[in-house]
Formats: sequence, C-alpha cells, structure tokens
Amino acid sequence: MDFIEACIAANREIYALLNSDADLRKECKRGFGGDISLKADLEAEAIFIKHLQKFGRIYSEESGSIGEGKDNIIIDPLDGSKNFAANIPYFGSSCALEKEGKVTCAVIANFAAGYMQIKYERRFERRFFLDDRVQKITASPLCGVGIFEKAYDFNDITLKLKQASLKCRSLGALALSLALSHETDFVLFGGNIREFDIAAGWYMSEDLHRLKTKDLLLVSKDKGIFDKIRDFMTRLDI
Amino acid sequence: MDFIEACIAANREIYALLNSDADLRKECKRGFGGDISLKADLEAEAIFIKHLQKFGRIYSEESGSIGEGKDNIIIDPLDGSKNFAANIPYFGSSCALEKEGKVTCAVIANFAAGYMQIKYERRFERRFFLDDRVQKITASPLCGVGIFEKAYDFNDITLKLKQASLKCRSLGALALSLALSHETDFVLFGGNIREFDIAAGWYMSEDLHRLKTKDLLLVSKDKGIFDKIRDFMTRLDI
Repeated sequence: MDFIEACIAANREIYALLNSDADLRKECKRGFGGDISLKADLEAEAIFIKHLQKFGRIYSEESGSIGEGKDNIIIDPLDGSKNFAANIPYFGSSCALEKEGKVTCAVIANFAAGYMQIKYERRFERRFFLDDRVQKITASPLCGVGIFEKAYDFNDITLKLKQASLKCRSLGALALSLALSHETDFVLFGGNIREFDIAAGWYMSEDLHRLKTKDLLLVSKDKGIFDKIRDFMTRLDI
Repeated sequence: MDFIEACIAANREIYALLNSDADLRKECKRGFGGDISLKADLEAEAIFIKHLQKFGRIYSEESGSIGEGKDNIIIDPLDGSKNFAANIPYFGSSCALEKEGKVTCAVIANFAAGYMQIKYERRFERRFFLDDRVQKITASPLCGVGIFEKAYDFNDITLKLKQASLKCRSLGALALSLALSHETDFVLFGGNIREFDIAAGWYMSEDLHRLKTKDLLLVSKDKGIFDKIRDFMTRLDI
C-alpha cells in the first residue's frame, strides 16, 4: 500500500539520521503542540512532509496544519523527544492516515528499539529496521506489568494501582506505549489528549477494552483489569 | 582486558538468543533473588556462567553463589525480565568484577536498544552490538528528565518531584537506568537494594553526586537537583 510504503521510507530515513553524529539534541523554537522542538523534531518532520504530503493535508505536532488534500495525515515526527535528549532508549514516530474522519492505517516506529509497527486492514505486524524481520502482533497472556504514562501527575490513581498490585512503567512516549497495548497488561494515560499523540496508537488498540475521556485514556486486553482501573477512576471522580 | 572481553562475548550470545524465536518468556522456578525466573533468565545465566566462571566466584540473581575464586563476579543475567515478557523494550544484563571488596570493571548491556556500556580504568563507553559503533560517555547538560525506578511505591516522593517540576520516567530495569545517570538529570530508586541489581551501575556512576541508604539510591550529575531531592527525602523522613 502506497501510504504505508511512504511511511516506512520516511522512518528509515529518520532512523538513519538519528543514528548519525549530527547535533540533533539542540533545542529550537516552541512547536505547535506547545513543547520546545529539538533540531531532531524539525528534521524528522521535514522528512515526513517530503514523503507524505502527496497523500493529503498533514497535521503535525511541530507545525500544525501543512498543505491541502481530502484526506488527513496525523503525525508526531518524534514522540519522546525528552527521552531522545536524555539518551533514554524509548522514542519514535507516529503516522495515521484518516479518511472521512476515520483512521484507516497507521505506522508507529520505535527508533531506539529499531522497529516499526504497521497496521492496515487485517495486517498488524512489527518490522525491524536492520534485518527486515517481521513479527505478527496479537494479544499475549497477562505478564504482570502495564504502562501508566504521566503517572507523576496522578498520584491518587498510582496509589490505587499499587494497592491492587498492578505494577506499571512510565516510559515517556504515548504513541509507542499504545502500540504495546496487546503485549502489556494495560496502558493508561492522563493529561491533555492531543490528536497527533494518539491517532495511530488508538487505531492500533481498537480490538481491546478501551475508554477515552477528555483527559484520560485506558486500554487493556483484559476485561478484569480494565474494569478494576475504570472503577478506580470513577471512585476518584476522574 | 580478559574479563571485559568475556562479558562482551557472553552478552553477544544472549543478544542473539533473545532475538531468536525460542519460547523464552515461559515462567520457570523462583530465583535466589525472590522473583519468578523466566526461561530467558535461566538461559542467560547459563551463558554468563560458561563465559565468566574462570574469573572467580559468581553471585547471581537467579542462583545465588556459584563456584569458587578469590574475586567476585556479580551478575544480573536479565535485568527487566518483566519488560522482556511484555515486549517493553528496556531489558538487559549487568556484570561487575569485584577485587578485594571493590568493583574494578563493569559491563551493562541493553539488549532492547542493542548496546553495551563498558567501564574500566579511564574508559567509559557505549558499544553497539550490530555495527560495533563506539560512543564515549560523559555527563551531558541537563535535559529536563530523570528516572525514578519503583516510583509507584513512593507516592510522597513522586508528589514532591512533581511540585518541583522534576519530570521522571519509571522504566523497570535499575542497572540499565544507573547506566544512564550521566545523560539523565537524576536516577532515583526506592526499595530493597540487592547487590546484583546495583554493583555494576553504582560503579558506573561513581563520579557523580550520590547517596545510598538501606533502601534508597540517588544519583545526579547536578548538585542543585541532588540537594533538592535529598532534602525531600530528609523532610519525608525516608
């Protein structure tokens, strides 16, 4: 599929760039989404624009709306920029193609771990940059750990999770974490939900138990865990 | 140096194993450190024993003390096993060589990100598995993010960090996080401190500001951040 192939080509170019010696951790101007953009954010965005602008109007964290077209392309050129700046190996990119208000395919890359996750129609797979190895992604058994992005802003929920012995990680790149929702026990996020952060990841988790409010996302492959966490949030009036 | 070369060879063998299709996420018996060992933990340990037993007595998370010798080799064959089980790309290994009660060299691998960190004498570098690329590691400028391992057990500290606008991640593999202490703004850990979790990482951070109590570790390259977090802990009587 042309859009997917273009995303893969763009991600390959960014992956090579981030592994080069260029001074990519330098801070630049404040982006459309409100965060300070690194040189890496801006260069990654330029690469996506070059590869994807022929498919429609691009909506990006760094620059907002770019170009024209019937379809929307929603991108986060570098999700987890702070991790990239700190050499914490959890950063990547997120691209979704939206037709008539509905996401129809998506690619989420994890540049630190060296793979892309690709979903369209019935295909859902992880493809590695260096050896083109392909893994099919399906929901795996419970493993005892979930992800709670921005946990530090929600002390009351963290306490409830602890009391329920639900261990979690806080990794710092929401799209990448949503992309792991079939393999981890749950993915939870609290805070300002922005379209470019979740368009691709939300689409990838559409077969799981999910809840989205104005400022909270919950995804779990397990109905029991989903109900338990939803119950905490209701009791805490979140 | 022979010990370092043997660690590198062992890590290369484990890296290849973890990237193979073997059923490594299966749970096996409870290890010496108290956690349930995965098949991957046990196979990684067997590889380390094979490569390192000639250097001394091995002390490992999975099996406790193994063999005899004047020197001690302290290993965690798979740090972040739960992450490995959940496909969260943050897991690795930790090896330290201890002579007369003092660590003299160490290797910490991050298998998900595909590199090893090596420290001995004045060398301190990151070496990548696939292309043998080498990066020298030095303390970088502040970047706005630290690491707080087991944050979910210390709600009061998390709240203080939030009030002080100190953002953090909770990644789930302490040795790997200590190995990032020159690049992140701080590394904090609360809980039961076990020798095999920290021997190598503590040695790697020896030139930074540090505090170690019975159940808390704090490392920062920045004196201001170090003092601020230490002050929280004193006030909270931790």
